Amino acid sequence: MLRIAIVGATGAVGRECLALLDGGIVPVEKVVPVGSARSRGRDLRAELGLSLPVAEVVTLDELDPDGLDVAIFSAGAEISAREAERLAAAGVLVVDNSSAFRMRPDVPLVVPQVNPGLLDTRPGTNIVANPNCSTIQLVRVLSPLHRLAGLEDVVVATYQAASGGGVHGLRELTRQSETILEDPKAQGAPGGRFGQPLAFNLVPEIGLQDDTGLTHEERKLVREPRKILGLPGLRLRATAVRVPVFDCHSEAVHVRLREPVTPAALEKALAATDGLRVYPRSQSPSYPMPRTVFATAEDRALVHVGRIRVEPEDDRAAALWVVADNLWVGAVLNALQIVELATGNGWLG
Amino acid sequence: MLRIAIVGATGAVGRECLALLDGGIVPVEKVVPVGSARSRGRDLRAELGLSLPVAEVVTLDELDPDGLDVAIFSAGAEISAREAERLAAAGVLVVDNSSAFRMRPDVPLVVPQVNPGLLDTRPGTNIVANPNCSTIQLVRVLSPLHRLAGLEDVVVATYQAASGGGVHGLRELTRQSETILEDPKAQGAPGGRFGQPLAFNLVPEIGLQDDTGLTHEERKLVREPRKILGLPGLRLRATAVRVPVFDCHSEAVHVRLREPVTPAALEKALAATDGLRVYPRSQSPSYPMPRTVFATAEDRALVHVGRIRVEPEDDRAAALWVVADNLWVGAVLNALQIVELATGNGWLG
Repeated sequence: MLRIAIVGATGAVGRECLALLDGGIVPVEKVVPVGSARSRGRDLRAELGLSLPVAEVVTLDELDPDGLDVAIFSAGAEISAREAERLAAAGVLVVDNSSAFRMRPDVPLVVPQVNPGLLDTRPGTNIVANPNCSTIQLVRVLSPLHRLAGLEDVVVATYQAASGGGVHGLRELTRQSETILEDPKAQGAPGGRFGQPLAFNLVPEIGLQDDTGLTHEERKLVREPRKILGLPGLRLRATAVRVPVFDCHSEAVHVRLREPVTPAALEKALAATDGLRVYPRSQSPSYPMPRTVFATAEDRALVHVGRIRVEPEDDRAAALWVVADNLWVGAVLNALQIVELATGNGWLG
Repeated sequence: MLRIAIVGATGAVGRECLALLDGGIVPVEKVVPVGSARSRGRDLRAELGLSLPVAEVVTLDELDPDGLDVAIFSAGAEISAREAERLAAAGVLVVDNSSAFRMRPDVPLVVPQVNPGLLDTRPGTNIVANPNCSTIQLVRVLSPLHRLAGLEDVVVATYQAASGGGVHGLRELTRQSETILEDPKAQGAPGGRFGQPLAFNLVPEIGLQDDTGLTHEERKLVREPRKILGLPGLRLRATAVRVPVFDCHSEAVHVRLREPVTPAALEKALAATDGLRVYPRSQSPSYPMPRTVFATAEDRALVHVGRIRVEPEDDRAAALWVVADNLWVGAVLNALQIVELATGNGWLG
């Protein structure tokens, strides 16, 4: 039975985390929600209608590492960078949802379906990093393709949902959409959660651009899969785009493989992979869509892959369309599956 | 002074064609709008408030090729395949917006900014094919890249607007969006203009799939650029996706070149190309977006390109984000620029 702190408990990711814990994904003795001073004392158990034993919201300063097994951080990279190591040094296993520790060589970056072996033993740093949302769904399909035929080159274009901008991002999309439906010529101003108006529009910039013109999101999509797959030299190119969809990220993935493949072999390898739902060519529709994936808890917990094809003129070139709930598969569920794996390996709780 | 028939004059593309002709893009003596029997006798001049000399709508059966210089077909591949050759044989230059003739070796497939030389003389078939909307904006950026450094491999993911589904497609997106804003859990049924509900959703299937799993739109995106660029062996892969945007198609384009390039050289080559608007890295935002491109007639007439970058680890790999109005640049404007080019070359009108 675990004693778990949720840092950033009142945000979009924190609330999904509480909901999934309430569903019984790991055995819980108590949950300590951690929030800002403004949220101090709030009773999330009542607010969210949970049956879990959830304490009142405390601030990070008040959080006592004694009597805690795990702290799940979902409060942004700045807070993680400042506070996570203190808790880890006090013996708490930190599972960090931010980008603060992902590329540190002494911190394992874990997707339990892909590289579970990294958690056979407790990491010396007491920190496990949870990858970026768009990375997780990508590596969960790249991993079986690599085992099947060897990855040589990957190009991915993303179609990312407003829920990646949290509760405020969802509200912005709703309000801007209402405005445009009333006045189709309305032009919003730059700013807000996505930098530019998102309703009925596309914003091909997620996070700041570096000197090379890559955005922060694209850098994560390029670097994190190499570390998770253990392929430091993998050629990977990405364009990350925010689209006017509420929930679930989608990705158009084009790969080149070392060995020739057939569509049937691709479908078979993907269908044999834990946690994937495959939409075969023989089925209609032969692809997942964000709104249908988000409609049920069962589908929100899976990575969905369709439009599986091999280029007619190049039997080493394959393409896929991948959809997953960025808050569940892409964040909370992966973090809780890390906790589950650690518990199962006998060194936690 | 040209005598022009517009076949499919009452559709979304036909109406844009009349509006652009009214703007004086080519000198016009008279316009004969051609529609279905249901539209027979309609006065589009009054309906659309045009100052052009526009006759009443006639049916194709009634259309007299005598006294016509040009017929622009925008009524779908079936009608083009059935009727275009009869007009062409009677001496009318047919500019065909459908896919009916594009891949025929004896029919030039023309983008005036890319391969104008094909119209130095009148084609023997009297038919000129207008490429697919998503192809036109793609080749208009690929062409200068090829001249700069030689194209080796192209991967494109599209983000295509509802206006590609005509007036009905636009209405569907509006109505479905209103429904979901009122009831966020509403799940539409398959069907309609896009095969699946589009509002706040993504539909990664445009046109029917063939045996290899490529959709009709993707086949066009792969084959047409090879013919237009005169590069029959060009490696090109595509995923075409319908997105909940009203107007303007967008494309995430990743290319590999034969020679190394710098971002500055890319920006310079693109900026020197006729009809492109470049969003340099030094500008904010450094990219076009569909809603802002659609906002002015000036921008609707250009191809917009931003997010111009070279991969940090591979100086032969470049990426771009391309936006253009699929009805203007992607259809009508290209067709009228073909007419303009033919007139300028002295063999038409």
